[in-house]
Parts: sequence; C-alpha cells; structure tokens
Amino acid sequence: MIDLSSVAAFDRALATLPVANAAAADAARARQQQLTKPPGSLGRLEELAIFLAGWQGSPRPSMAAARAVIFAGNHGVAAQGVSAFPAEVTAQMVANFAAGGAAINALTGAIGMPLEVVALDLDRPTQDFTAGPAMDEAACLSALMQGAAAVTPETDLLLLGEMGIANSTAAAALCLRSFGGTPADWVGPGTGLDSHGVRHKGALIERAIALHASAPLTPFETLRRVGGRELAAIGGAVLAARHAGVPILLDGFICCAAIAPLAATVPGIVDHCIAGHCSVEPGHAQLLDRLGLEPLLWLGMRLGEGSGAAVAAAVIRSALAAHNGMATFAEAGVAGAA
Amino acid sequence: MIDLSSVAAFDRALATLPVANAAAADAARARQQQLTKPPGSLGRLEELAIFLAGWQGSPRPSMAAARAVIFAGNHGVAAQGVSAFPAEVTAQMVANFAAGGAAINALTGAIGMPLEVVALDLDRPTQDFTAGPAMDEAACLSALMQGAAAVTPETDLLLLGEMGIANSTAAAALCLRSFGGTPADWVGPGTGLDSHGVRHKGALIERAIALHASAPLTPFETLRRVGGRELAAIGGAVLAARHAGVPILLDGFICCAAIAPLAATVPGIVDHCIAGHCSVEPGHAQLLDRLGLEPLLWLGMRLGEGSGAAVAAAVIRSALAAHNGMATFAEAGVAGAA
Repeated sequence: MIDLSSVAAFDRALATLPVANAAAADAARARQQQLTKPPGSLGRLEELAIFLAGWQGSPRPSMAAARAVIFAGNHGVAAQGVSAFPAEVTAQMVANFAAGGAAINALTGAIGMPLEVVALDLDRPTQDFTAGPAMDEAACLSALMQGAAAVTPETDLLLLGEMGIANSTAAAALCLRSFGGTPADWVGPGTGLDSHGVRHKGALIERAIALHASAPLTPFETLRRVGGRELAAIGGAVLAARHAGVPILLDGFICCAAIAPLAATVPGIVDHCIAGHCSVEPGHAQLLDRLGLEPLLWLGMRLGEGSGAAVAAAVIRSALAAHNGMATFAEAGVAGAA
Repeated sequence: MIDLSSVAAFDRALATLPVANAAAADAARARQQQLTKPPGSLGRLEELAIFLAGWQGSPRPSMAAARAVIFAGNHGVAAQGVSAFPAEVTAQMVANFAAGGAAINALTGAIGMPLEVVALDLDRPTQDFTAGPAMDEAACLSALMQGAAAVTPETDLLLLGEMGIANSTAAAALCLRSFGGTPADWVGPGTGLDSHGVRHKGALIERAIALHASAPLTPFETLRRVGGRELAAIGGAVLAARHAGVPILLDGFICCAAIAPLAATVPGIVDHCIAGHCSVEPGHAQLLDRLGLEPLLWLGMRLGEGSGAAVAAAVIRSALAAHNGMATFAEAGVAGAA
C-alpha cells in the first residue's frame, strides 16, 4: 500500500508512477497477429487485451479477479439546491446498493463481478465549497487513504464509481480549476436540473473558483477545496492502483473529474485507466479529451454509480475471451492472407 | 414458418410485416420510470429493454433463449481476386467454428449464447456476378428458406452473422443496386485489400451493376443477381423472424447489406432489428444511415462472422439485467426527484 499519510507523500506517489510491462504487451500483440482473423479486425477488443496484458504483466490477461468499488459521499453544496434530488438520497442509495436494488447491482451481477460500496462519513457532509474549502487537510487525506485501501494487488481490473447528491457540481468545479475554461464548459443537468438550475449551478461554481483562486493549483489543494470525500477516494484509488499494477476502469463525468486535478499536473496518471463510456453529461466528452482517453462506449448514459463502466466491463470480458480463447492460424489449419 | 417457396410468396411475406406489441413496450417504458435512477439516465439500455419488450410481447423481456446463427457461403466472384484471403478459407473457418476456435465461438461463449453455423453448399460457389446472375431462382429461394429455417419461435433474440470469402464484394454490390451512389461509396478493404485491390473491386462491382441494370429492381432479383447464398439466408432469417416475433441482432457491413434490397423496397423490415455495431468497413456507417439504424457500438471492428453483434449482445444482456433486476423507488424507499 502506498503512503498517503501526508500531502508530501501524496505528491511523491504522484511523481513516481510505474509504467506498463512492455514485454507482456508485446507478447499479447504478437498473439493477436496469430489468431484466426484478419490482423486488427477486432479493433478495440485487440487494444483492450494488449492494454491489460501490459498493466497486468501477463500476455494472457484476466478478469477473474475484477472488482467494482463505489465510493459515496455527501456535499455541503447540496444545500444550495444544485441537484434534482434531496441530499438524503445518497444514504438511501447506499442502502439500495446494500440491498442489491440499484443499477450497479444488476450490471455487475450480470457479469459476476463483486461490488463493494464504501460510504465516506455520510453523516458529515463536506463544507459548502462556495463558502470555504470542502475539506480540511486531514479529511482529504483520510478520503484519499480510504480510496487507496480499496485497492488490493490481486485485483486484475478495478472498476470505480461514485454516488453523492450534488457531486456533479463538485466535479464541474474540479474540471474548471484543473483545466480552465468557463463554468458553461463543465456544468450540466446532472441527475436532471432544468436550464434555470444549470445556470444557478454554474454561478455557484464561478463563485467557488473565484473564492479559491489564490490557493496553490496543486492536485491536493484542488481536491480538498472543491472536491469531496468520494472524489478524493477515487483519486486515491487510481493512484494506489497504479503503484499496485492494477488497471482501472473509469465510469462517467464525475468519476473522471475526480482525477482531473491529478492529470492536470501529471498527465500520465491516466495511463493505466480505461474510460468505460462517454456520458451525456455535457462536460464528459471534453474531459475525456483533456485526459487523453478514448471512451469504449457511447450509450447515452448519465447515471453514475459505476453503471457505464459496468457495461464496459462486459465488453472487456468479451475482448479477453477472444484474446485467450481463439485458435491461431496454425492451430486451426486456416490459410493466412495472400 | 413463413412460406418462401416462390418469389410471389417471398414478396407477400415482405408486404405483410407484423408490428411490435405496443402495450408491452409501454409497460416496459413505465417500469423504467419507476426504477431507482433518474428517468432516462440509462440511455440506450432503457431503449433496448423497451424495444425487446415490444418485439417479445413481454414487459420483462429476456435473453434466456438468445441464439447466434452464422451463415456461410462461397462466391464465384472470389476468382477475380477481390479478397486478401483464398476462397478455401470459407470452409476452413467453418471447420474452425465447429472446433470452437474462432472469434465468434469465444464471444458467444463469454455470454453463454448457443452458436449454430449453417454452411450453404460451400462446394458450389455462386456464379461470378460480373458475368451473370449469382444464383438461379431455385438456388436463391433455397437459401432464403434455409435462412428462415434457422428461426424458431421460442428464440427471444436472434444474432445473425456471416462468413464467405469475397462477400464484401457482393455486399457492396447489394448496397449499390439497392441504394444507388457510386462503387466508391460502398467498397472497402474487406479482410485487408490494399488500395489497388479496392479499386479493382470497385471496377468489378461497377461492371456487375451495369450488367444487371436492366433487370427488375426487386428485392428478390437483387439478392439473386448480385448477392450470395449466405446473404439470401440472412434476408430469409430476418423476414421469418419478423413473422415469428423474434427480434434480430445484426452484425456488420455484410450482414446489414444482406437486407439492403429488402429495406430499399420495404423500409420497415428493419423495425425488429438492432444494429449491434458500426464496423470500420467504409460503407457500413452510410448503410446503417440508409437503413435508419443507430448502432449500439463503435469498436473499430471489421471481422464479420457475427463478432460485433456478439459483443453487442453482452451490452443487451446488461440492459435487460438492469431492467429486470433493479428495485423501484417505492420498493427501495428512495426519494424521487423534487
């Protein structure tokens, strides 16, 4: 487990990122050339197998030990009326996850992937970041560490998701502070705001960014000031997974926004990440572009809680089934291209 | 089983298409509004569940009886050097399917979907359609009927795929004769032609279209003249499935091209069809547009044999898991939107 007990330790972990195993990736690439199909004809399925080979350090990557972890947190800014749903829905949905009734339960269940939910101090929402920092240093470090603790080295693919009423407001603030632009570039309806609500949300984010403008533009300060517990946890999990050699499957706008502060400083932090899908939350396509990630799926989803990533996991499972299960031209006695 | 024993019977079946069960689709739509998520937030997953509800006539659609059928045929035009692979690869790949070594075996295996392969007179390639009709009437009717015979009414989703060296040439000819344009609109590298090969292929298709220009522009004559056995079989399966109330999951360019002649005359023939993916074979995006089908996936695939549809089937399974497995707001005690 990496050390995230201080801001300096966090910065150090972010500055010392391991890279993929090139030999394993090359071996997987060579295998794809031998399988009974025109080379390259499985498109992204081939790329996924090669990517996972590199990060798992194995020419025959696996999803047998894939896991989904959903982080949940509450947000002081919810009191400003930035969500179509009341703040108590965060805890109610965590109960729904526990009871097996949410989309993410059904979607992970469909592929037999274990699901864990980490509820982060739901009874202690972050501070309203339009009036001050969302978290103090200790709270942000604690959230980072709880995220990192969800990573186990035997995990072969870690799916990350989130739940937190008002967290698309925090996500937009993270993006704006990390990558610049205007509030309109990053603000959207979330769970279902009308256009009036979206403008209100944008104005609040503008106020928050101005309030925190003089603070250092570091990953930690951005997460701490305009993020949230579940967002910092995702950042901690992505960082810990990198050091543990565990590839990450990202979900939608909010999940990706959690690593925006890290990526703005260290772009390579996303190298072990797959973008599961592009949501219809307006900022997501631009965010993926800024992160340099090409999403696997475009299904018009905007639910969060890891749901888009869980659908993508079904596609990745198919990719690995082809990679590991197909015969080679030699094995099958099929003639190659002329 | 529908009657496809004559051209008149085929035309009659095409002119009398049943429609979806609106009540079942409405009930599924109402259920989606009650599930614990913002309405609409599962995007295409919701649409898929509602679509299958309508065509299965059940508010809780299923994939428990989904099947994949791959039709294989050989093409006289292969002798003109229009493929990167030799013609004997069709039979070799059919053997590979039987042995379980092909991509479609791995991809259907990953989701537990049974796979059948129907090899259509591989030792009797169609005639070279640049010199005359690919098939006589009896051969085309026989292929249509073999396609229809693959449909059983208890099937709840039928995945269609194809294998046939040179069949992207036939597919491009089917599209050109059905929807017009130029050979360049529809011709691509298939399994891996270089640009010289693509130009040669385009010139052959232009010659074929000119040769058959005076023949009636009916679905049957187009399939018979510039199609192939596996392509007519797909057309027959799509038509029979419609009459049996079985929704169809289409694969790539060639699979979709098989129904182009039908759709050019009766656009509603695709109403019970899902386009599994958009391949990188250049004509496919335009063909889907002409068919009025929005593909589920864009994964840069171009293998055929049902492979893209099989990946899409994993996504559809996820859609149905959410639809059937999620709790409602009332069941979960979660507050709705304000």
